[in-house]
Amino acid sequence: MDVAIVGASGYAGGELIRLLMTHPEAEVTVATSRALEGRPVTDQHPHLRGYTDCVFTNPAAGDIEADFAFLAVPHTAAMNYVSPLLERGIRVVDLSADYRLPRDVYERIYGVSHTDWFEAPYGLPEISREGVKNARFVSNPGCFPTGATLAAAPLAPHAAHVIYDSKTGVSGAGDNPSATTHYPNVADGINPYKWTSHRHLAEMKQELARLGSTAACYFTPHLVPVNRGILTTAHILLDEPMGQEEVEALYREFYRGEYFVRLQRPMLSAVRGSNFCDIAVESEGSRVVAVSAIDNLVKGAAGQAIQNMNIMCGYAENAGLTVPPCLP
Amino acid sequence: MDVAIVGASGYAGGELIRLLMTHPEAEVTVATSRALEGRPVTDQHPHLRGYTDCVFTNPAAGDIEADFAFLAVPHTAAMNYVSPLLERGIRVVDLSADYRLPRDVYERIYGVSHTDWFEAPYGLPEISREGVKNARFVSNPGCFPTGATLAAAPLAPHAAHVIYDSKTGVSGAGDNPSATTHYPNVADGINPYKWTSHRHLAEMKQELARLGSTAACYFTPHLVPVNRGILTTAHILLDEPMGQEEVEALYREFYRGEYFVRLQRPMLSAVRGSNFCDIAVESEGSRVVAVSAIDNLVKGAAGQAIQNMNIMCGYAENAGLTVPPCLP
Amino acid sequence: MDVAIVGASGYAGGELIRLLMTHPEAEVTVATSRALEGRPVTDQHPHLRGYTDCVFTNPAAGDIEADFAFLAVPHTAAMNYVSPLLERGIRVVDLSADYRLPRDVYERIYGVSHTDWFEAPYGLPEISREGVKNARFVSNPGCFPTGATLAAAPLAPHAAHVIYDSKTGVSGAGDNPSATTHYPNVADGINPYKWTSHRHLAEMKQELARLGSTAACYFTPHLVPVNRGILTTAHILLDEPMGQEEVEALYREFYRGEYFVRLQRPMLSAVRGSNFCDIAVESEGSRVVAVSAIDNLVKGAAGQAIQNMNIMCGYAENAGLTVPPCLP
Amino acid sequence: MDVAIVGASGYAGGELIRLLMTHPEAEVTVATSRALEGRPVTDQHPHLRGYTDCVFTNPAAGDIEADFAFLAVPHTAAMNYVSPLLERGIRVVDLSADYRLPRDVYERIYGVSHTDWFEAPYGLPEISREGVKNARFVSNPGCFPTGATLAAAPLAPHAAHVIYDSKTGVSGAGDNPSATTHYPNVADGINPYKWTSHRHLAEMKQELARLGSTAACYFTPHLVPVNRGILTTAHILLDEPMGQEEVEALYREFYRGEYFVRLQRPMLSAVRGSNFCDIAVESEGSRVVAVSAIDNLVKGAAGQAIQNMNIMCGYAENAGLTVPPCLP
Repeated sequence: MDVAIVGASGYAGGELIRLLMTHPEAEVTVATSRALEGRPVTDQHPHLRGYTDCVFTNPAAGDIEADFAFLAVPHTAAMNYVSPLLERGIRVVDLSADYRLPRDVYERIYGVSHTDWFEAPYGLPEISREGVKNARFVSNPGCFPTGATLAAAPLAPHAAHVIYDSKTGVSGAGDNPSATTHYPNVADGINPYKWTSHRHLAEMKQELARLGSTAACYFTPHLVPVNRGILTTAHILLDEPMGQEEVEALYREFYRGEYFVRLQRPMLSAVRGSNFCDIAVESEGSRVVAVSAIDNLVKGAAGQAIQNMNIMCGYAENAGLTVPPCLP
Repeated sequence: MDVAIVGASGYAGGELIRLLMTHPEAEVTVATSRALEGRPVTDQHPHLRGYTDCVFTNPAAGDIEADFAFLAVPHTAAMNYVSPLLERGIRVVDLSADYRLPRDVYERIYGVSHTDWFEAPYGLPEISREGVKNARFVSNPGCFPTGATLAAAPLAPHAAHVIYDSKTGVSGAGDNPSATTHYPNVADGINPYKWTSHRHLAEMKQELARLGSTAACYFTPHLVPVNRGILTTAHILLDEPMGQEEVEALYREFYRGEYFVRLQRPMLSAVRGSNFCDIAVESEGSRVVAVSAIDNLVKGAAGQAIQNMNIMCGYAENAGLTVPPCLP
Repeated sequence: MDVAIVGASGYAGGELIRLLMTHPEAEVTVATSRALEGRPVTDQHPHLRGYTDCVFTNPAAGDIEADFAFLAVPHTAAMNYVSPLLERGIRVVDLSADYRLPRDVYERIYGVSHTDWFEAPYGLPEISREGVKNARFVSNPGCFPTGATLAAAPLAPHAAHVIYDSKTGVSGAGDNPSATTHYPNVADGINPYKWTSHRHLAEMKQELARLGSTAACYFTPHLVPVNRGILTTAHILLDEPMGQEEVEALYREFYRGEYFVRLQRPMLSAVRGSNFCDIAVESEGSRVVAVSAIDNLVKGAAGQAIQNMNIMCGYAENAGLTVPPCLP
Repeated sequence: MDVAIVGASGYAGGELIRLLMTHPEAEVTVATSRALEGRPVTDQHPHLRGYTDCVFTNPAAGDIEADFAFLAVPHTAAMNYVSPLLERGIRVVDLSADYRLPRDVYERIYGVSHTDWFEAPYGLPEISREGVKNARFVSNPGCFPTGATLAAAPLAPHAAHVIYDSKTGVSGAGDNPSATTHYPNVADGINPYKWTSHRHLAEMKQELARLGSTAACYFTPHLVPVNRGILTTAHILLDEPMGQEEVEALYREFYRGEYFVRLQRPMLSAVRGSNFCDIAVESEGSRVVAVSAIDNLVKGAAGQAIQNMNIMCGYAENAGLTVPPCLP
C-alpha cells in the first residue's frame, strides 16, 4: 500500500516514516513539505540516512497519489486536505485537532472557523475501536488526552473528580525553536503552562463522558527536561472508596487483550520509541493515583495513527509497531 | 557566634557551610563527619576550596563546643544530640524529622521509637514565626512540606481537597549513590514514588490543620531530572468557587512583607541557591492551581534552618541569605 | 539458531535481547544471571515486557545448551566460559576485554593473570572482517576503540599524532550505581577521567598499528550527561598537509560499501539504538578533525557482537540490525 | 560608583547585575536595552525580583550617565560606544570581540570593517595584569580563550602543539532561541561546531604568543547539554618530555597568589556562579593533559569584566566576586 505523509518534515512526520520502515504492508511514497521541497528526506531526518531515497514534494491536495494518507500538518491546515483526499478514494488519518471535537467546541477553543467540518471517529482504539473499523477517515487523538484517558478510563464511572497532572517532553512542542524550547529555559526546570486552559482539556472531558463518567475533570501540563514521553499522574477522587485489589482487578479486566497497554510501573524509558502505554495504579481508598507513560510522538501521535490505519485496513493492529522500545 | 554543623558532609551540611560564609554574625567552627574525620572540608565540598581550612571532626555530642548547632544527620540520629547540646547552653535547629510531628505520629510513620521526645516549635516562619522567636530549639520542616504548605496556605480555610503533586530534584535523595539516583535511571524520566505513602504527608496535613483547614490532603512526589529544586503543583478544590482576582488578593495579603516569598511565576532556576519561595496562582473557579518553587537544599533545608537561627537569635531574618539566585 | 546470553542482566545483555528480537535466524533461549536466577527477564528489562517469557538461569559453563553464545560478563569472568563452550561446539563472541590484546599487554594493563589465553580474531569488521569469517570465537572490541578507530582509520598511514578526545554517555559505566554515576555528579558536568591511563588506549594503539600507522596515539575520555552514545573527536596531526577534498575522498573510498558507516555529520541522536557509526571530517591542512558517533551499547557492544555473529554464521551482516534509529 | 550596563537584557548583562549586587563600591544605575525599554529589569531577570527596581532604558551613547560602563552588546555594536563614553570620562570594559585583536586580524576574522579601532589592554589579569592597571578602557577576553589560555599558560614555552578541545554549556549561545539551542537538538547530544574555524582561535594564538610560545595551536568547541560552564581539555604535546611533579610545580609556581585560579580537579559544578578557574594537569611524558573549568558567564564574561574593573579602579581584585559557588 502506498502511503503519503502530508507534513513530513516535523517530528510526527519523521516518526511516521521511521515506523513505517518496518511495516509489512505499507510503503511511504509521498512525503510533503512546503519549506523543504526538493530536498532529500534524510537531510531533515538524518537518522534515516540509508533507509530512504525519498525527496520532499509539495503537491496540491488534489494531486497527491496514494492509497492512504496521514495528515501531520497543524490544525486549520489539515481541514483543507481531508475532502480532496477522500473524494479520490484515499483513506486518511488526521493527526491534527481539526476533527477531534464537536464543531462548536472546536471553534470556540481553537478560536477559528471550521471550513469543512463533519463528524469523524475518534481513534483511541482501546476506548472506541469499533468506530475505527472500516472507517475511511479517522481523527487521531491529542498526545495528552491519549495518556490521560488511558490512565483513568477503567475508573471513569466511579470518579467524582479527575485531576490530570501531566509532564511532557519537549518534542511535544515541535521542532520549531522558541523561548519555550530554548535549552537554558528547559534544562534544570519544571515548567507548568496553561495551568487551567490547555486546549486538550476538552478532549479529555469528551472521553471521560464517552466512558460514562460524570466526574469534574481538570488538567495542568508541565514541560520537563526530557526529549520524549508524557507521564500523566491522574489523581482520581472516587465516589466511594475502593481498595487496591479491586482497582487492580478493574484495570486488568478493562485492558485484557490490549497489546499496547502494559500494566506495569510506568517509566518513560520503557516505552520510548514504541506504541506502548504502561500504566499502574495505587489506591489510598478515597483517592486513586493512576499513572501512565507513553511516547508522545508514538502512542501520542504517529504510532497511534498507524494503529488506526491498521484497524481501518484490516491489518494486524500492531503491524509496523512491534519493534521493542530502547532502554536506557 | 560560633556554629557547629553536626553531619557536615552531605548536601544540607555543605549548604549550611556555603550560606554561612556570607553571614555577618555566624562562623562555622565545627563540622562533624564520622566517615571523613580528619579530612579537610573542601575535599568533600570542592566548590568551597579557598573559603575554609576547616577539617571534619567527630566529637561526642557532649564535647561539641559552639554557641549554636545545626543537626544535619538522619532521623533517629538527631535525637541523640538535642538534649546534650541544650544542656550545655547550645541552641539547636534540627533538620531531621525527629521533632516535626507528635510522638505517636512520628513513631508510627517512621517505624521507630523516639528515645528523647519533647515538643518543639515547627520552624516554617511564614506560617508560625511566633513559636520560633526566643526558642532554644527548633525543628526544621521537611523539604516537600515547606513548598507545599506555602503554596496552599492562603487558601487553606477555603479548600475541600488539596492535592500536592510535587516534582523534586535529585539532590533531595542525598549524596549517597543508589539505583534511584543512578544517572540512566533518572535522566529522560519522570519517576513518581511512594505514590500515596510518603512520610512528609503527615507534616502537610499537620500544617493545613494549623492553618484552620479541614480539607482532605493528598500527596504524590516525583523524582525529576534536575539537580536542585522542588516544584509543587497544588491542585486545590474549593468549598466555594473563587475568581482570579480574589485569589490573588488573598495571596498578596497573606504574604505581605515576607522577604522570602515572591509572588511571581515559579521557576526553579529563579530560586536556585537562594531561600526564596516563588508562588503563583490560577483559578478556574472551583479549582485553583497554586504552584511554588523552592531550592530544596535552601528553603527546603539549610536556608530555612539559618532563617530560623536568625529569628531565634534576633538577627535580621535574612542575614546570610541575601545572595541573589543564579539563573540560568 | 538458539542463542545463549551469559550475563544478561546488564545493559549490554539487555541490548542483545532487544536486538535479537528482530533477528530472522536467532532466538534467545538462555539468559543467565547469578543475582537474578529464577526471575523473569522482563523484571530487569521492563521495556521488553510482552516480548519474552524468558527467565534468568544460572547454569555452569559446561551446562549451557545453545548453538551460539555471547559473553556479556566482566573481564576475568569471561575467560572461564570460552573453552567449555567451544569444546561443546558452541560458537562464541566475547564482549569483555579478555581476548582483545596480546597476553602480556592484557596482563599488564588489567593487572591480572590470564588463565586460558589464546589468540582470537578482533571483531571490528570494517577494519578486519576477514579474520571474523568462519571463526568459531571472536573477541568484540571495546566501545571507545570502536568509535575512535573508525574515526581515524582512513588517515592512519598519514598521521603523526592521533589524539582521541572521547565523550561517553553514562550507560557505558554499567547499571551498577556508584559515586561516578550519581545523578548530581553527572548532570550539568563534563567529567574527564583516567586522563592518560584508560585501559582502552592499548586497543586503540593496536588498531592503528594494524592499519599501518606509526603515529603516536593519545586518549582522554570524558563522562557526559547523556544516557547513550560515544562521540569521539579525533585530532589527527598529519605527516603532510592534506586538503578537505582529498581527505573526504579517502574516507569515501575506505568506507565504500560499509552498511554501518555513514559519512554524515555525527549526532548521537541519529545513531541511538542502532549499529551505525556516523563520521565526518574537516581538514585545516596540518590537522584533520575526524568525529565519529556511535551508540556505545550497540556498535560499541551488543550490535557489533551480533554483526560478528552474522559474519561468523554466514547470515546477512545486518540481520537483526536494520531497525532505524530513533531521533530525537 | 555608578555603573552603567549597556546591553543588560542578555545573560552576560544579567550576570553583571547579579554580581554587582554584592559589590561594596559599585551600584548599577543604568541598564540599557533597546527591545525592553521601559520594562523592569526583573521582568527579564526574574531571579533578581526583590533586589532592584531598575528599569531598562535606551539612551544614546552620548547620554549615558555613570562612572563606569560595561559593554555587553554584540561585536560591531560595541565599537559605537567606546569613544563617546571615554570622552565623557567614563571608564569602560568591553565584553565584545571588538578590541581583542589587531585591527587586520579582527576585520578578516569577523568579516567587518572596524570604524573606531585603537589598541586596548587585553583583560586576562592572570596573564597580563599590568596592562589593565590604570587603564581607562579594557577589552574583556572571549569565554573560550579565557579557559583555554589559563589551562595551557604555564606550559606555553614548552609546547610544540596545543590542541584545545572545549565543551561549552548552552548559555554561551545567548538567550536568543535558535535551532542550535532547541532543547531536543541539545539534550542527549554532544555537538562539535566550527571544528577548525571558530573565531576565538585567533585570541588563543595571540595569548600563546604573548606567553612566549611558538606552538601550533588548534581548537575545536563542542556544545554540551549543560547550562553553564566551559571545560577545556588542553592536549599539550611537549618539545621535551616532562614528569608529573615537574609539571605540577610549574603550575603551582605560575599561579601562586592568584585568587581566582584553584589547582584542583576541575568540575563545572564547583565553579558555577563564580569567577574561579579550576585547573589540574596530568603528564604522560610527551603529552600533558591540562583541564580547566570556568563558568562561561562569570570568569568567561561578567565576572572577569568586574575583576578588570576592580583592577582599573584600585579596588580589591575580588570585590563583588567572593560569593562561594553553589554545588550541586
